[in-house]
Amino acid sequence: MNKISNITILGGGNMGSQIAFQTAFKGFNVTIYDINVDLYSQVIENLELLKNIYLREAHATEDEMDATFNNISYSFNLPEAVQDADITIEAIPENMEIKQKLYAELGRVAPAKTIFTTNSSTMLPSDLMGFTGRPHKFLALHFSNLLFHCNIAEIMKSSETDADSYNTVIEFAEAIGMIPILVKQEQRGYILNSLLMPFMAAATELYLKGVSDIETIDKTWRIATGSPVGPFEIYDIVGINTVYNIASNGDLKAKLFAQYLKENFIKQGKLGYLSGEGFYKYPKERNSLK
Amino acid sequence: MNKISNITILGGGNMGSQIAFQTAFKGFNVTIYDINVDLYSQVIENLELLKNIYLREAHATEDEMDATFNNISYSFNLPEAVQDADITIEAIPENMEIKQKLYAELGRVAPAKTIFTTNSSTMLPSDLMGFTGRPHKFLALHFSNLLFHCNIAEIMKSSETDADSYNTVIEFAEAIGMIPILVKQEQRGYILNSLLMPFMAAATELYLKGVSDIETIDKTWRIATGSPVGPFEIYDIVGINTVYNIASNGDLKAKLFAQYLKENFIKQGKLGYLSGEGFYKYPKERNSLK
Repeated sequence: MNKISNITILGGGNMGSQIAFQTAFKGFNVTIYDINVDLYSQVIENLELLKNIYLREAHATEDEMDATFNNISYSFNLPEAVQDADITIEAIPENMEIKQKLYAELGRVAPAKTIFTTNSSTMLPSDLMGFTGRPHKFLALHFSNLLFHCNIAEIMKSSETDADSYNTVIEFAEAIGMIPILVKQEQRGYILNSLLMPFMAAATELYLKGVSDIETIDKTWRIATGSPVGPFEIYDIVGINTVYNIASNGDLKAKLFAQYLKENFIKQGKLGYLSGEGFYKYPKERNSLK
Repeated sequence: MNKISNITILGGGNMGSQIAFQTAFKGFNVTIYDINVDLYSQVIENLELLKNIYLREAHATEDEMDATFNNISYSFNLPEAVQDADITIEAIPENMEIKQKLYAELGRVAPAKTIFTTNSSTMLPSDLMGFTGRPHKFLALHFSNLLFHCNIAEIMKSSETDADSYNTVIEFAEAIGMIPILVKQEQRGYILNSLLMPFMAAATELYLKGVSDIETIDKTWRIATGSPVGPFEIYDIVGINTVYNIASNGDLKAKLFAQYLKENFIKQGKLGYLSGEGFYKYPKERNSLK
């Protein structure tokens, strides 16, 4: 079993920032890599937002937050960012060309010890492993949005992934406070998104057909299943941009829905819970995250 | 607005018994009609089971249970069963021929004042209204299984239903402790089953493909969404027979799943929560209904 101390997060967007923050919060040495220095202020903004959420919702202390920031460094140079990485977690855009380019360079510059993982929601390890130069040390480690609440980490290997890398990643996921969910076969959408997508598509169809309104659909689900959140509240938590990206890769109906989200939400900056507004405005009086 | 005092439940099966019990529990005068006297012992068995559940899970008292049973009478003769009914709630098998036959007779023998409602999960008011002789006084009033916990009542009218019947049913649903969910357009599966079916089909597919096991799929959903129950726990609550009936009316994939349920569950008497076993055994240590 490898010892994991140094983690490099590839991509400082919404999910990359969350993974970096949680990993640093749990005491690991984290480097956030992004493609250019102009993104630095955006990454810092993401982390400051997370600090406030952890203080408010995860009951973290200011000292813990200081320690978390002290555990994070930044790099805009890939060879430097991964020079001592035990593991990399890739959370860059869901674009095959961009991922291919990153993995090609990463495979050349990372030390032999480094395990590569992807947080991709839509691609399989076997879609990407050919670019990495080390398919035996490559697998998926997939987080949910608001991972400090929704603390599952879905772990999915390809037929090439070796047992040592797999076991190391399971242990690492536990060490950063996640509950490892082992996906036994490669599955697009893993377990969670495979359940969420048809469910949320059905909710959306009810709404767009005029069968019911958003509040009633959510209420029906909450009362009937005891869930704290209905489908449109889940949309807001997952994040409208994430739903848009996944729907854009779906069938015709999904693509139409992606278009609807773009016109009615994304263009107005309504990106869900973290942005303060999506299908609902936040904070809601009733805390939808508990 | 009509005054509702006398309720006749058509069909003393699982759902009919639950609706009758809850309605009587709320102080209404309930008659349970079923097709022949041989079913009497089965109806009583259903009601005794419900009594134990209400005592245990709804914190009802023995006195309340006595009053509930006092409010219930039984009839195996339709004209007698509906002779003073303000409303009928039909919960007989999901078979068009059987329903058609019942509604034809009901339309002849019921007083003019009686509002007819159906608890059908798969048929629309407009599918059935032609048999009733009074489409203006006919609509759907659909309950969830374990309705004392999952206390929604989905109310769906056809284009023919008059406003007075509609409003009376909404008020009645509230009076028996349900939260009325108004379905604005006729929709097969209403709101709840329209959300549940694709979600549960996706869960089943993950399981049957070997992507994961039942416990892990449920756990993933519970942790990621905060729901108290995952999809297979929901199956058990809804009841395997109900899922079987709905799936049998679905597409090819659904029909294959119906077959799977029949072979692996129904033939072994594993009918879900109320029968003590379905995908899980009950009572579970962790109460899955809260």
